[in-house]
Amino acid sequence: QWMMLDWKPRRPDMDMLIDPFGLGRIVQDGFVFRQNFSIRSYEIGADRTASIETLMNHLQETALNHVKTAGLLGDGFGSTPEMCKKNLIWVVTRMQVVVDRYPTWGDVVQVDTSVGPSGKNGMRRNWLVRDYKTGEILTRASSVWVMMNKKTRKLSKIPEEVRGEIEPYFLDSDPVVEEDSRKLQKLDDNTADYVRTGLAPRWSDLDVNQHVNNVKYIGWILESAPLPILESHELAAMTLEYRRECGKDSVLQSLTAVSSNGVGNLASLADIECQHLLRLEDGAEIVRGRTVWRPKYAKNFGTLGQLPAESA
Amino acid sequence: QWMMLDWKPRRPDMDMLIDPFGLGRIVQDGFVFRQNFSIRSYEIGADRTASIETLMNHLQETALNHVKTAGLLGDGFGSTPEMCKKNLIWVVTRMQVVVDRYPTWGDVVQVDTSVGPSGKNGMRRNWLVRDYKTGEILTRASSVWVMMNKKTRKLSKIPEEVRGEIEPYFLDSDPVVEEDSRKLQKLDDNTADYVRTGLAPRWSDLDVNQHVNNVKYIGWILESAPLPILESHELAAMTLEYRRECGKDSVLQSLTAVSSNGVGNLASLADIECQHLLRLEDGAEIVRGRTVWRPKYAKNFGTLGQLPAESA
Repeated sequence: QWMMLDWKPRRPDMDMLIDPFGLGRIVQDGFVFRQNFSIRSYEIGADRTASIETLMNHLQETALNHVKTAGLLGDGFGSTPEMCKKNLIWVVTRMQVVVDRYPTWGDVVQVDTSVGPSGKNGMRRNWLVRDYKTGEILTRASSVWVMMNKKTRKLSKIPEEVRGEIEPYFLDSDPVVEEDSRKLQKLDDNTADYVRTGLAPRWSDLDVNQHVNNVKYIGWILESAPLPILESHELAAMTLEYRRECGKDSVLQSLTAVSSNGVGNLASLADIECQHLLRLEDGAEIVRGRTVWRPKYAKNFGTLGQLPAESA
Repeated sequence: QWMMLDWKPRRPDMDMLIDPFGLGRIVQDGFVFRQNFSIRSYEIGADRTASIETLMNHLQETALNHVKTAGLLGDGFGSTPEMCKKNLIWVVTRMQVVVDRYPTWGDVVQVDTSVGPSGKNGMRRNWLVRDYKTGEILTRASSVWVMMNKKTRKLSKIPEEVRGEIEPYFLDSDPVVEEDSRKLQKLDDNTADYVRTGLAPRWSDLDVNQHVNNVKYIGWILESAPLPILESHELAAMTLEYRRECGKDSVLQSLTAVSSNGVGNLASLADIECQHLLRLEDGAEIVRGRTVWRPKYAKNFGTLGQLPAESA
């Protein structure tokens, strides 16, 4: 009864009856999976907004629930029954995210996800994240997935039996994100401005395959981003290229190069672009990335309450 | 429609209508706040079960939503209006958690929380976590909170005006956890078996007060727990004593002593007890702790699917 007083649904539709625990459901003729998330207190950071890791977690969760709801969850973690038979798993090769606004504690975000073809042997997965109340688009993301043999760790074509399972779900839609087609640089010790070494997965970073979750990589990439940027700017866009997997015993290095050099001035700059590399100690590349940062409060000044004073 | 097929509610009650987004609500004559959480894919680890950090996050979220729902959220983060006027914030001094069973992806847990007095100037907060479907108790937790002046960082008595705000919500109930009254040891370099140095908060570990969240401490404590224990055992109980706050520039050391020594044999032991200390580099104590670990699969063998084979 308490909650009814201050909660005004945007549309008095059947959402709550169909999906009481917010586990999501299929919409749009079966091609789009939709799930709502209320942002929790522990998902926000010093800026009172959800972290990029939180957003990426929500994307992961909807992708898995999409597969599950379609009845295609063969193993516990995203593989279809035919993929399981052939020891195939999905691996992400590319991820592009554009964040227009970060939600805050108590906001409800609505995540739509759909899949489509990508070349001959890949699958594209798109996401669109909206503010549930206003419909405002908060985040758009697009990713490319290919199949890997779980035992040989080699990439595989999509077998016909698997294609038969997933193609009925393919939606031929316009890209949700304009493709960032600029080549991602390979950083090294000479070209990097910041290097953070000795990054190692903790037990709790491992997923059920004893591998490091994709989202964890993003945290490591940001570990070499200079603090003045994190304090004065927010991540506006990110392009990642996953090149190699990282196991539970890997020790990683995170490299960052800032395009407009001179950290002393960073806080006063407009948008900043960074290049990133996550590599093993022997130099093998794990993830290449590019991030774009915009000044904080540029977009949402006035909605932040007392934070600017507190953090000054 | 898809979801209706494989979702069977335990009780066809009004939960979903009253609380469509799982934000929680007051029950039991106003004294208990209740919130459901469906465990998400990114909240589980290599064992396919929710991590202790996930559980602690759910406890934090219900505590804050309890205060919010009672209309007592003066600032953004748990202080009542009278506390805000007097620059007071809540700090936790003691936390005791007993985990009987860890939930897995897709499980729905129901968290009940209530508050009561603790001595003259403290508040106790209890939690009871149940499996929503079966009603089985999964976790019990109890904590003690006192007030601190935000500016002087000194502890404060509870002012009468604040007492007037919170006392109407005090529930005089039996303790949910049997008090672990054994003194917590102070570890040092000689008594510790494992020491992990150089632990530093990342930007994303900071809360809105630019302080490290309590839950983060638990991750750091476990960083010095030996991997063989993490792999073969699960955390069954934990007692923490928070002694000093840690800021964004702190660098910490995590110390662990294992009561039954000899890691080679750890996997074959029954319950294991560990002592922990989180301290600053100058030796100042941040958190003292004790953990109890039980062999994995001891309690829930047979419900784990293919995991034992995969991880062998």
